This record gives sequence, structure tokens and C-alpha cells, in this order.
Amino acid sequence: MGEVRVIEIHENIGAANEKKAEEIREKMSRQGTLFLNVMSSPGSGKTTLLVALIKLLKEKYVIGDMDVDIRSTLDATRVAEATGVFSLQIHNGGLCHIDADMTARALADVDTSGMDILFLENIGNLVCPAEFDTGAHKNIMLYSVPEGDDKPLKYPLMFEQSDLILISKTDTLPFFDFDMEKAVERIRERNRKAKIIPVSAKTGDGLAEVVSWIEAMIS
Amino acid sequence: MGEVRVIEIHENIGAANEKKAEEIREKMSRQGTLFLNVMSSPGSGKTTLLVALIKLLKEKYVIGDMDVDIRSTLDATRVAEATGVFSLQIHNGGLCHIDADMTARALADVDTSGMDILFLENIGNLVCPAEFDTGAHKNIMLYSVPEGDDKPLKYPLMFEQSDLILISKTDTLPFFDFDMEKAVERIRERNRKAKIIPVSAKTGDGLAEVVSWIEAMIS
Repeated sequence: MGEVRVIEIHENIGAANEKKAEEIREKMSRQGTLFLNVMSSPGSGKTTLLVALIKLLKEKYVIGDMDVDIRSTLDATRVAEATGVFSLQIHNGGLCHIDADMTARALADVDTSGMDILFLENIGNLVCPAEFDTGAHKNIMLYSVPEGDDKPLKYPLMFEQSDLILISKTDTLPFFDFDMEKAVERIRERNRKAKIIPVSAKTGDGLAEVVSWIEAMIS
Repeated sequence: MGEVRVIEIHENIGAANEKKAEEIREKMSRQGTLFLNVMSSPGSGKTTLLVALIKLLKEKYVIGDMDVDIRSTLDATRVAEATGVFSLQIHNGGLCHIDADMTARALADVDTSGMDILFLENIGNLVCPAEFDTGAHKNIMLYSVPEGDDKPLKYPLMFEQSDLILISKTDTLPFFDFDMEKAVERIRERNRKAKIIPVSAKTGDGLAEVVSWIEAMIS
């Protein structure tokens, strides 16, 4: 398995988040690392999807992964075990988000210079993570079928802030009253530009399209 | 359908939350209203379960409902339409929780004196709501099968703060790799005293037991 490291990071309220986020993005662009922030509700399948994507990308690209959690080290360990890539677990001390300053402090601890893609798995939450620019180039959001097709109405900012919206766990569509057309329409009311891809990490549906979207950002 | 009202409430950071929460609890106890705070991840089925429970309880008790959301009025409308009880929608201005001061301001707007049970449907989030005493007598948490059996490890405070933990959407157990025994064991590591009941609002499983738990609090 890949290496797992744990870092304790707590909020610095005074930080100028936007400035710090720009600095991170510029650094990542200069060194040729695509930095992707992955957000969703708890249990939407972020880690499972990341594992599946990294497996598809890792022969061609050098990949790193950072996982934010309150105090467990489950996600980073799962990613490292399943994919063999470097994985950093960030403990954020009970906060419901990670901001650019916290990201910068995590990045100071890791040599990312050789990485083509760096994933940041944000904490499971549909409210706070959407409010903080982490310094990532793009925001990816997972929105899982079991959560119901009304979520774009209830957590608007998260849908507005995302560049790629993955409707996940599509293999469970037969078991839920989830109207895909209505869900897409409600996302579109919040965000006309985001790419929307239905995916299932279980069946592999949609993953090739996600890989293409990521590769288009690299080239 | 029952009445729907909307109230805009934003955080008062200076409030002495604990003191305010105690005041609410005492007022509710004096007037004989059982005040229950319902928390969970987005899409765990809080509204659906509340509708099912209110239908079972409303012939015998006078019930009220308050729903917290960022800016939609979906939940209060759904509860009012489906059950006919009074329902207040609280808009919390994008926060990820509701505190006792916000609850008190909402309560000031409603006459709860004749209610036997008042439900507070908190915002969908496994992090922040656990940090704020709302003034409720008891905390009820929903933890849905599709979220996965690792959640007690990842959102410990929510599990520690709950008096009743409902493992919801049990009708979907055949479709997910959710180990019920492991989930209960992990909850027990966080919280030895909470009552745990597996439920499905779809099939009705477990609802009678939830009603008994609530009724025991009233008598």
C-alpha cells in the first residue's frame, strides 16, 4: 500500500482566504499539478469514486491524494491501500470545512512538485465546504441517488460552486424514487455551466467520461 | 394542509448558548411540551420519517414542527401538506446549524403552549448541528443505510450527542454493503446509552418502537 501520513490542522480565522487560495492555484499551475477539490454529503461515495478514478489514471499520471476528516484516518488509508498512491490524512479538529490556509499548511508538509493530479477529498458536508475556496483549480461535487432529487433546491451554494457534478450511485436508481430529469433540471437552475455526469463506481458507468474531463484539464 | 410560515434567522455569535438552551428546555418542560431535535446527513430521510411519525402520533397528541433550511421552504410545506400540523420553516441564512438563540427567536414567533410534542428538523449535516445545544429535551439522529457503516468512526460527535439513533432506510439493506452488526458496534463505541432502532419509513419497520420511545418521554 501507499504511504499514509496524518496532519492536525485547525482553523486560522484571520487568514485572507482568497489571497491564499490564489497563491496555491498559481503554485500548482506553475508546477503543472492539476488540483481538484472533491465535495459531497457524508456517504455519497467520495472515497470509493476516488479509488476507482485513481486506478484508471495512475498508469499515465503521478497522483496524490489528501483526505480531510475530523479525527479518523480511514479515507487516506483506504485510498493508499487500494491504489498505492501517496495519501495524506488531514485532521481538521471538528470543523465542517477546509479553507485555503489549512490547505496551504497541509501542502507545506508534502512534496507535490512531481504530481500531475492532486485530489483533495473534502469533509462530507453540503454546506460549509462550498463557502471556502481551497485553492483547487476545479471543484467536483458528488450527489448520490439515495439523497433524493430535491438536494439542489436545499443546498444551492454547493451546486453553484461546482465545475463538475457527478450524480453518483446510479446503480441504485431502481430502488429509489429519484427522478434523474428533475434532478438535472434543478441543478441547471443553480448552475448552467457545470458538467453533469451520472456515475457508478460499482458498475463503472460514467467513469471514462470523468477521466476524459480530468484529462482535458491537464492538456 | 397545515399552515406554513417562514422566518429568517441569522446567528447571534455573542449568545450564551448553554444558558439559552436551558431556558428553552425549562419553558418547554413547564408547559408540558416534549421538544425533540432531529439531526442527520442531507438526504437521510428526516422529513419522510417525521411525516410518518406525526401521522402515527397526531390523533393522540397536539404536534408542532419546525424545519431549518438555508433558503428553501420544501420541508415545512411537505410536513404541513402531509400531516396537517402547524409547521414553521426557519431560514438560517446559509449556516450549517441552529443554536439555542436562533431556536428561541423562532419560538418567540409561535404559540407552542398547547403542543404535546414539538419537532425541530435540523439542517442536514453530520458536523455542526452536534456542536450546538438547541434547547431540545432529546436529540434524535437518523443514520441511513446508503451512507455506509463507517459513519460513526467519521462523525463521532453526532453519535455521542444523540439520545435516539435511528438506522434509517433499512428497506435498502439488500442493495448496499452495509453491515448492521458492525454499524451498531461502532455506534456503541461512541455512545453506550443511546437507544438504537433500525427503521424504514417506506415499510413502516421500527416506527411503532420509535412511537413508544417518544411516548415514554411524555408520560
